[in-house]
Amino acid sequence: MKDKENSFQQIQDLGFAKLIERFKKRTGKKNDKVLHGIGEDCSIFDCGGGLVQCTTTEIFQEGVHFDLTYTPFHHLGYKLVTAAVSDIYAMNATPEQILIAVAIPNRYSVEMMEKFYEGVDAASQDYGIEVSGGDTTASHQILSISVTATGTAKKEDLILRSNSSEGDIICVTGDLGSALAGLRILLREKKSWQESGQQHFQPDLSGYQEVVQRQLVPKARFDFTEALKTTDIRPSSLIDVSQGLMNELRALAVSSGNGFEVYSPAIPISLSTRKVADEMNEDVDKYAFYGGEDFELLFTIPEPLVEKFKAEFDDFVVIGKVTGNKGKLQINTGEENSYEVDLT
Amino acid sequence: MKDKENSFQQIQDLGFAKLIERFKKRTGKKNDKVLHGIGEDCSIFDCGGGLVQCTTTEIFQEGVHFDLTYTPFHHLGYKLVTAAVSDIYAMNATPEQILIAVAIPNRYSVEMMEKFYEGVDAASQDYGIEVSGGDTTASHQILSISVTATGTAKKEDLILRSNSSEGDIICVTGDLGSALAGLRILLREKKSWQESGQQHFQPDLSGYQEVVQRQLVPKARFDFTEALKTTDIRPSSLIDVSQGLMNELRALAVSSGNGFEVYSPAIPISLSTRKVADEMNEDVDKYAFYGGEDFELLFTIPEPLVEKFKAEFDDFVVIGKVTGNKGKLQINTGEENSYEVDLT
Repeated sequence: MKDKENSFQQIQDLGFAKLIERFKKRTGKKNDKVLHGIGEDCSIFDCGGGLVQCTTTEIFQEGVHFDLTYTPFHHLGYKLVTAAVSDIYAMNATPEQILIAVAIPNRYSVEMMEKFYEGVDAASQDYGIEVSGGDTTASHQILSISVTATGTAKKEDLILRSNSSEGDIICVTGDLGSALAGLRILLREKKSWQESGQQHFQPDLSGYQEVVQRQLVPKARFDFTEALKTTDIRPSSLIDVSQGLMNELRALAVSSGNGFEVYSPAIPISLSTRKVADEMNEDVDKYAFYGGEDFELLFTIPEPLVEKFKAEFDDFVVIGKVTGNKGKLQINTGEENSYEVDLT
Repeated sequence: MKDKENSFQQIQDLGFAKLIERFKKRTGKKNDKVLHGIGEDCSIFDCGGGLVQCTTTEIFQEGVHFDLTYTPFHHLGYKLVTAAVSDIYAMNATPEQILIAVAIPNRYSVEMMEKFYEGVDAASQDYGIEVSGGDTTASHQILSISVTATGTAKKEDLILRSNSSEGDIICVTGDLGSALAGLRILLREKKSWQESGQQHFQPDLSGYQEVVQRQLVPKARFDFTEALKTTDIRPSSLIDVSQGLMNELRALAVSSGNGFEVYSPAIPISLSTRKVADEMNEDVDKYAFYGGEDFELLFTIPEPLVEKFKAEFDDFVVIGKVTGNKGKLQINTGEENSYEVDLT
């Protein structure tokens, strides 16, 4: 018998998705007012009177989630607020407040952290939310930042991940892969800087402003939820594209118990993103499928409503449909290399 | 003129308290439903119908806030939940849910993280709350954990830091300095282990179980808020002792605009804590004043109510009184070395 107590399984061998599945068995005492817990973009708490509160929290580590050699502190503050409120919009809720906890190593100054908070403040103004709390403490090695946002919705307005039906149309806002394209350019310039041996290196970002902007100062799609409010149209499911389209398609398909089919030529990719992928000799579809941090919204909608919604909000495209092929994600490339992903 | 853009002020030179004061100017867009923001134990959000939601978030860094050479993962999970719910009890609210975000470096295994979540689960069972969400991601160097808890209260039941009046009596639950005493013992054994050069070292904790337990597996004082519910007695202000008595006295005094006077011989310190301080040749009063993580509750109460409350809940002592000596904290030692701290 294996000695479980002393066994050592690397987390990367199991994968974070499976690790979360294990944690889901350990959720303390069930609370009837927690309507949705682990598995949605936010936890959903019933405040009574038809109102629910959505809460999301994320942690960001220097060296993993951000690199301060090319990320200005102001932009970092802005981006982390975007990441948090994007999860609130992905429930079709309205963000209300944000709490920011920072653990700061000695090498960063008061002035740097003030720039960070200027970015937090600017984003909070843009999203109409208040910075209402947090934590400020020391760190030995790296800057760690956790961001918690709460939002409210009428209970009946919430849109979950799980409610799509066979025949629904899969749509996505804006375009995908841009944030990864911007990252590729920033990493190329970082490498040039390191190879140059110069302290004061001027990165060449001309011609790449659009994708670099998408990487450094992304915006959450509140225009989508605002547009929904003016209609009686309801997507059947909704998620934000923070970890790459493939991950989000998987989350919607698995939670709904349906299959999904995606026409990959329909996936919206900007010319700027295509240009970067060409320069890097990389497959731009991979940028769209696996690049994260685009903060676009992926949603399903009953077919008859697509044209009607287009009249109200036109920055989205149809990329596929919900199928009865349970547990399968079919990627239709329009050519012989179409393939199927087993989601189970 | 000093070049502000390029100046470098170390955060430790400014201090975290003053850094937070600077951040308080950058709170995004004011939200009328946020009744209390930065400056309380929790942010307070008005849910309508007389109900408020309290939200607290904290970040914990390996090497600063915990040391895994002597902290079992299970205990770490338990303790971080205690730290979070303690802030909810400190508003006289009821904790409802907790969200845990972890950034995990490669050197920790699936099994270790499962032990951590077992501790989270055990504490959540004890406090009657649900683990409703979070984040699980990678880290390059250190384990970082952020913990967010929310709780609810009737608006009129909330107890803030700021509402004490001159003449109120200052009280504290349980005893103080124990968690630091436990830490001293654990650090001594860690040093012995390092000096021994042995891989399998058996720490000698016999005779110190009480203080080590207080350091590793502290409990939040929900028995206090439960007792309050059975009475019509209301403390005028309330805070949890997480960062040492001196810090918490300062927070209550400054936010109330009053002065505080504390009789230091009255501060409750256990025999076990005194024994450790003696062994270490240290001043046990400093353990009580500056040692954090006791998670006791510090509160003020109108004088006539003290005896009445004692009949309902007896695990507290009187340590001082609220004075009109604005901005001053007087420490009355009962001897000639009494002193006054300027809080402004």
